[in-house]
This record gives sequence, structure tokens and C-alpha cells, in this order.
Amino acid sequence: MDNEFLPLATAAAREASRWLARSSAAQRDAGLLSMAEAMRAAEAEILAANATDIGSFTGSASLRDRLVLDPHRIAAMAQGLEDIAVLPDPLDRTLAEWTRPNGLRFRRIATPIGVIGMIYESRPNVGADAAGLCLKSGNAVILRGGSESFYSSIAIHAALISGLRAAGLPEACVQVAPSTDRAFVAAMLGAAGAIDLIIPRGGRSLVERVQREARVPVLAHAEGLNHTYVHAAADPEMARKILANAKMRRTSVCGATETLLIDREVAPTLLPLLIADLRALGCNFRADGASREIVPGLPPAADNDFDTEWLDAILSVRVVDGVDQALAHIARHGSGHTDAIVTEDADAAEIFLAGIDSAVALWNASTQFCDGAEFGFGAEIGIATGRVHARGPVGLEQLTTYRYVVLGDGQVRP
Amino acid sequence: MDNEFLPLATAAAREASRWLARSSAAQRDAGLLSMAEAMRAAEAEILAANATDIGSFTGSASLRDRLVLDPHRIAAMAQGLEDIAVLPDPLDRTLAEWTRPNGLRFRRIATPIGVIGMIYESRPNVGADAAGLCLKSGNAVILRGGSESFYSSIAIHAALISGLRAAGLPEACVQVAPSTDRAFVAAMLGAAGAIDLIIPRGGRSLVERVQREARVPVLAHAEGLNHTYVHAAADPEMARKILANAKMRRTSVCGATETLLIDREVAPTLLPLLIADLRALGCNFRADGASREIVPGLPPAADNDFDTEWLDAILSVRVVDGVDQALAHIARHGSGHTDAIVTEDADAAEIFLAGIDSAVALWNASTQFCDGAEFGFGAEIGIATGRVHARGPVGLEQLTTYRYVVLGDGQVRP
Repeated sequence: MDNEFLPLATAAAREASRWLARSSAAQRDAGLLSMAEAMRAAEAEILAANATDIGSFTGSASLRDRLVLDPHRIAAMAQGLEDIAVLPDPLDRTLAEWTRPNGLRFRRIATPIGVIGMIYESRPNVGADAAGLCLKSGNAVILRGGSESFYSSIAIHAALISGLRAAGLPEACVQVAPSTDRAFVAAMLGAAGAIDLIIPRGGRSLVERVQREARVPVLAHAEGLNHTYVHAAADPEMARKILANAKMRRTSVCGATETLLIDREVAPTLLPLLIADLRALGCNFRADGASREIVPGLPPAADNDFDTEWLDAILSVRVVDGVDQALAHIARHGSGHTDAIVTEDADAAEIFLAGIDSAVALWNASTQFCDGAEFGFGAEIGIATGRVHARGPVGLEQLTTYRYVVLGDGQVRP
Repeated sequence: MDNEFLPLATAAAREASRWLARSSAAQRDAGLLSMAEAMRAAEAEILAANATDIGSFTGSASLRDRLVLDPHRIAAMAQGLEDIAVLPDPLDRTLAEWTRPNGLRFRRIATPIGVIGMIYESRPNVGADAAGLCLKSGNAVILRGGSESFYSSIAIHAALISGLRAAGLPEACVQVAPSTDRAFVAAMLGAAGAIDLIIPRGGRSLVERVQREARVPVLAHAEGLNHTYVHAAADPEMARKILANAKMRRTSVCGATETLLIDREVAPTLLPLLIADLRALGCNFRADGASREIVPGLPPAADNDFDTEWLDAILSVRVVDGVDQALAHIARHGSGHTDAIVTEDADAAEIFLAGIDSAVALWNASTQFCDGAEFGFGAEIGIATGRVHARGPVGLEQLTTYRYVVLGDGQVRP
């Protein structure tokens, strides 16, 4: 059944994407508000479907918590759609404009990408968020959620399309995989020309599978092996506050710091304080030899600990000799996601910020700011870790592409 | 040997790309001028290598012509590098800048993509152009030219790196495949994480192979099935001039028009003139029934002629009933490359330009303007036909990506 469904779905999505490309911002915003209203109205159906998913769920309590919906979470999804509706229209922006000596006038204009395939794991709200962001940016979307949340996804989708219908928008703007068959994912990944961009959102094995198999461009959200580098000229109190937040505010987010680099000059005085702060918050450590000499009892770091994205209350710790060694460590072990320096020395900060090749480089701030809302994007569909199209938080602008409109008065090329 | 070479080449390229990311525009421009000087100095060696290639070439005269180098063509390659040197620096541009209520200051900055793999067919100058554009934009490049031009490519590369060396730049900024083994291409296409972007430039089979096999993002240059739509309110003389240019100026370029759409209202008077003009220039036709009633003797169009990129002196011809039918035809048969309308009616033009989803939409101008130099980009590495990262001519700006620098004074995330 899936093999028959996907070509129909992508054809319908293409048609919807053409409609969206010619739609007005007011039409799309009305669709968003109508989807939110329908979501609120469908609370009972969504909760019933969610109860079915929960009833057959056998995973851990923390995964179960991500799966559970309640009236508050449904209201938050609806509110999320309303929040997207009031964001600025990302389409039809003139990105550049110029006139050539022959009189041809060029405009580069932001346009939708087209048809987006969103592949995500259990949290059901990801589907509603993605539908809202794609609709606002004029893209048709095909959602394929985790199998654990299948009935929840179907019920949420039913609400979304009833909202689209009520607002007079094509239902095919938002489609959902009709089964949990994994072959459907393979078909999506192979749909070159029919799906324009795949966005995977989930654990490493999902993202790696998508990157390995996709014949369609992928905006991947891979690992965040992030560093906080405490420079010799760091304000000690600021360093303590930033590191505690960067590591422990939430340990499971991709913007969390995984490795502390600290200058040898200040390590004897500052490292014990940093370790004590984090220990009080429940953090464990994997430390290099120099750190262990300063703070006896720290567990030793194994060979690959500096290459490990913990996503947990564990911090790798290494003493370095200045900015260049910190940059070399990050170039070798980092994942190009988010890295920060804490220092009062503007020259050192400048060298660090210029030498870092990550999507986000921060000076005197927590790595946990790597987030669409914190960037002011209003909402995000993920954090891009590739190097083309978009890097860092993916908001509405990053869900657009561009085209050229060229105005002449009879020019021909010599 | 190739299987050993590529990991070494990509590691060296990564190191060179890090050097380039921290280099100044003046350093890169000095490298370009030095490469040009070395190219001129190596004229004899390049011609000798080219003679070896020509000596064993067995293909057609037109392909042979693309392969042949002479002092004039070598000087043109050197001049091309000098022309790139004087273009504006595409790096370190501030693309956006804002401050959040918490005081965090955000900057989005243009940066190099990293390591680019360039896979191209016989014309040896493509390698020199690509090396120049990549160097200017701070990217390391690995060149894999066509096997027919292997010795020419090796000699050109030798000149380029002697120029890099003389200017004090890392030689690994520009590398070349050490053999014609096709397995090297496969290794490049599989080098996820080691090569950041593959740019194929050549015939359809090359591009399709790259798109099918690549595990690395691809900026593909696929077909240009372009339309010129002569609207009922077209200025007849302008339409004649534009169509003749769009179809016949050069028939082998991807910006050439392949299909004429003409409004039924003006077809009886205008189509015979358009056909006569093109026939005088040596053009042949594949026409629908309505066209053949107006111009007897036109060869009939077969089912898939409207889906064929002729790249030759052949034009598909169809009569349509207004803008909507023209847009529907283009949506169904076009390749999203370049499409033009000829009309004096601004409302019709607006509907057409808004309804076209191609990379380039023109009003009253020849489709052959789809070219980096004509866009004012100075030079181009190809024309992108995908929907993400870049569309249309790929110049220096399109060879960059971006990153964020975030400046704080101790902010932590609540």
C-alpha cells in the first residue's frame, strides 16, 4: 500500500505546493489560525488516539513522557500554530536587486522550497510544529512520525486538515504517512524530484540512516559535540555561571556543552570551583591527566571520550595551553555545531571567533542559546549541522529558497 | 592507488580549507594572480600535455575542439584567474545582524563551504576556472576532469600549484585526481564528511550518476528545458528578435529555449514570421496540431518532444490559450531552469512571473541571459537546477555558506 501511496502523496503535495507558491500571506496565516482552532476542537479525539499509543507503549518512562499528550500540551500545540501565524512572512522578500549596463533589472526573491519530507521520532508535537512552519513558508509537507505515536499523529493530522479545509486551503498542504511501515521512509528517501528536501529529526541512528540512504537533499540535525573554552582572562564568576548553564540547564539538548577546555594558567584556581559547582548539580566527569592533578579523584578520560556527545550529566575536561590549542582541539574533536569562549580579553575572543568553523560561535554566553527561539526566529524545525543551504537553527527563512525575476525591454544576448 | 589517495587528499584539503578560512582576501587574490602568472609561464608544458591528449583522442571534431588548447586559450584561462582576483571578496560579509532583548548580539557571516569536489568533462579550462572561483571563495577544491583531458589537467594543475607555492599558499588548496580511474569518482561521491559539496559539470549521464550515487550534497546542473512564451500582447518585432536569439544564438547552452508557446490570438499572424526567421537561421521544428494548421509543412511533435531538451537547432512549438495554459504547460514539461514571457501587457507579465517556479523568469528578454557573467557575477562555476542552497548561476556568493557569531556579556539561558 505504501508503495502506491507515496507517488500519489507527492503528486498531491506538488500541486499543493504550486497553490501555496501563489497564495498570499493572509491566506496562509488564516490556515494556521484555522488549524489551531481545529486542534483545540479535536482535543478529545487526539487524547483518545494518544491513549491508544500509550496503551501499547513498552519503552522507558522518559520516552513515555515525550509521547504523552494532555489538554495542556494540545493547547500548547495550538498556541504554537498561532505564534507562527503572527511571525513575519518569509516569502517574497527581495534578497537582492540590481540593474545591469544593458538595462536588465534583476531581483532575487525568497520563494518556498516546494515539497518537504519530515521524518521524526516519537514526540507528536513535532508534526504540528513542522506543519505550521512549512505552511507559513509556503511548503507542502509530508509527515512521517515515529511508530510509537502513530495514532496520535493521525489524529493531529486529521485536525490540521480539517483546519485547512475550513480556511479553504488544499488539504494536501499537510499529509501524513498512512502506516508505520519502514518501507515508507525508504520510499521518501528515494523520491528524488518528488520531494525537494528531507528533514530528519530524532536520534543519531535515524539521522545517519537518512543521510546514508537519501537520494533527496537532506537538512540534517546531527550531533552537537560542543565546547566551552574558559580562557585565562575569563571572569571567574561569569565562567562558573556560564559553564553550569551550558552543561546542566538541560543535558539532553543538542546545544549542551560536552567538553570543557580550560587554560593551564587559571586551571589551578578556577577548575576546582567549576567542578564543585557542576558536581553539586549532579554532573560527572571524564578528565585528562592535567585536570586530575589539579582536582584529585576526577575519573580519567578514555581515548574517545573527547569524541563523545554525552547528552547526559557528564562533562569531558581538558587543560589547554591557550587559544590555538583550544581551536586545534575543537577542529579535531568538535562537530561544527556550537562552541563558546569565556574571556574578558577581546583579542583572544576575536582569534577564537574567527578561528572557529562551527555553525554558532559564542563569546561570554551559554552554548544552550543555540535555539531558534533564542535566536529570535520565533520557532524552529531543527538545527542544521550540514554546511550548505542553512546552518544552525532552521526557522522560516531557512525553509525558503530563491529565484530570479529579470525584467527587460527586448534585450537579446550578443 | 586511488582508494589510498582520496583520504589523503581530503585530509590535506580540510587542512587547506582551514587555512583559507582564516586567510585574508589579499592573500587569496595574490594566489590568484600568481596562479595566472604561472599558467602563462607554463604555456609550453601545457601545450605539450594537451598534444598528448589530442594524439589519443578518437571522438568527434566538435568534442575535439573543446579539448584543444592553444596559446590564446591558455592566455584566456590566465586572464580568467586575474578577472576573478578583482571581483569583490565574497567572504566575511555580514548577511544579517540583530540584538535580542537579553543583550545577545547576533551576526550571520558569509564563510567558505569547506572542501568542494568538482567533477567535469573534457574542457580543460573548467578546472582552472573552478580552481580560481574556489580559491577566491576560500574553499579547497579537488578536481576530477574528463579522462580525455587527463594530461592537460595534470599540466594545468602543476601550473596552478606552482603559482600557489610562489604566493605562499598551501598547495592543497587545489588538488587533482591522480588517474582517470572511475573508482575515484565513486570514492569522491561517497566521501560524506570529507567533501562538503560536489559540483558536477558535464552531460546528463554524468550529472545523473552523481545525483544517484552521491552521499555528499550535490549542486547539480541538470537540464534546461526552457520556454519562451509569446503572449497575445507581445510586440511582434520584439518577439521575433528575442525568440531568434533565445533559440539560435547558441543552441548547445543550457539557457537556450527549447519550446515556443504562442497565444492562439496572435499565432495566425505572428507564428509564420517566427518560423520563417528561425528557418532562415537553420532551425527545425516539432509542432502541435494548431501550429501545423497555421504553418503547413511543420513536422509534427511526438508525445515526448515537449519533454526533450534538444540542445540543438530544433524547436518544439505549441499554441496555447493564454497565460494560465502557458503556466500549466511549463509546470508539466519544464525543468525549472529558465522561462520567459514576451508581452507589452504588464498584468499578464506579472501573472506569468509570479506563477513560474523556475530559477530564472524573464520578461521581454532572451532566455540565453541565464549566465553568471550576464547576471554580473563575473564568473560562474555552473547553473544550479536544484532547489536548495543556490538556484541559477553559481558565482562566488553561491560558493559560500554562513555561520553565526554571538556576542554576550555573561548571558545564560533561563
